[in-house]
Amino acid sequence: MQIRDCAGPKAVVLLSGGLDSTTTLAICRSQGFQCYCLSFAYGQRQVVELERAKENARSYGCAEHLVLRLDLDRIGGSALTGSDKVPKNRSCSEMESSVPLTYVPGRNTIFLAHAAAWAEVLGALDIFIGVNVLDYSGYPDCRPEYLRSFEKTANLGSRIGSEGGHFTIHAPLLSWSKREIIQAGVMLGVDYAKTHSCYDPDPLGRACGACDACLLRLKGFAEAGLPDPVIYIPAKEGRTA
Amino acid sequence: MQIRDCAGPKAVVLLSGGLDSTTTLAICRSQGFQCYCLSFAYGQRQVVELERAKENARSYGCAEHLVLRLDLDRIGGSALTGSDKVPKNRSCSEMESSVPLTYVPGRNTIFLAHAAAWAEVLGALDIFIGVNVLDYSGYPDCRPEYLRSFEKTANLGSRIGSEGGHFTIHAPLLSWSKREIIQAGVMLGVDYAKTHSCYDPDPLGRACGACDACLLRLKGFAEAGLPDPVIYIPAKEGRTA
Repeated sequence: MQIRDCAGPKAVVLLSGGLDSTTTLAICRSQGFQCYCLSFAYGQRQVVELERAKENARSYGCAEHLVLRLDLDRIGGSALTGSDKVPKNRSCSEMESSVPLTYVPGRNTIFLAHAAAWAEVLGALDIFIGVNVLDYSGYPDCRPEYLRSFEKTANLGSRIGSEGGHFTIHAPLLSWSKREIIQAGVMLGVDYAKTHSCYDPDPLGRACGACDACLLRLKGFAEAGLPDPVIYIPAKEGRTA
Repeated sequence: MQIRDCAGPKAVVLLSGGLDSTTTLAICRSQGFQCYCLSFAYGQRQVVELERAKENARSYGCAEHLVLRLDLDRIGGSALTGSDKVPKNRSCSEMESSVPLTYVPGRNTIFLAHAAAWAEVLGALDIFIGVNVLDYSGYPDCRPEYLRSFEKTANLGSRIGSEGGHFTIHAPLLSWSKREIIQAGVMLGVDYAKTHSCYDPDPLGRACGACDACLLRLKGFAEAGLPDPVIYIPAKEGRTA
């Protein structure tokens, strides 16, 4: 992606290193914002995503990239931060039937609260998050009513909000399918080889091809008529897909 | 304080080790809850408060005490986590004139979001926080409309809320003066010698007697007609009050 100097308003972008958040960063950049990227080392098993986040923050010319520690693994309650097995090979109807095991309690509120705190210190009024409600996600903290409520809470609880300013939470992917997200990202020059979505990568960082995140990603690329450029564990090495 | 075995419902209590949160813990305990105490090492200069929190969690027979790390000092924006001087000897009208320098951006939202996450994992529906709006605090994230909005956000963003349960945020001290808080705590047997309020203690953990927290605490004890049992830096050693 070609980077131009940017003197627009500042925005904080939550960047996991995955397909959705990297596309969100590209959209934020294309709208002329100076991007301040925020990532978290929260005890996630797919810690390789932080390497991708660092690469993307650099290649998109972000003004700053902050990686903060959180002890979410000590709170537990998720297959992403605990020893529970990540579910594999689920159908779309299974994915949408309940809140998935990979839901991390409080995660988006904790991430957004840090983003609003940093935005306040930076003097930024715009926060970008790459959540979406389609693709059978089943995560309660990806719903539009949740995001509107968080925005109100952040404004009520901040110096900026209490002094007449107003934070806006931007979720540009909210109602897009994975296909639409990928198509938009390709138009903006996103290099999806440098994104990581898998919940259960092998020690080399290769994607399992069978967790919900891999299945939705592969479906999105298939529907967009494009090959997924990330590396998957080959079937002969025990790929579970 | 006398501790009785307790088999009531579980509650998460945000416990800083200060006067307000320790009184809140005593109130929660007196209402028959099993108390799960949550504290944070967030880069605060008054880290001695965590020692007091540990002592109080133990002496109140809490079911569990979790101390989590946060990188709020890397976000900055506060005299409590940075190198800015803590304001001293301010009058009450100065304290109420604006958001104080000791306000930590996002702190209560980040604390409450962790509390809701832990509550969800524990199967608890009640969260206690010791905020209050009186005593000239000026903190935007201590207002009742903020707490109501957070409660709604936590319910919308959680598995419990999306499956028909309901978190309640309890702020029993919300509209009490420091005098009333102290009087209630004394009735419940709180040992205020084991609480810490000062924003700027010396290396021995002694209170400065001149920051907003010390002045409000001293005023509260004076109005309650009681001596404050914590140790203050004597004037001859350079106490700034």
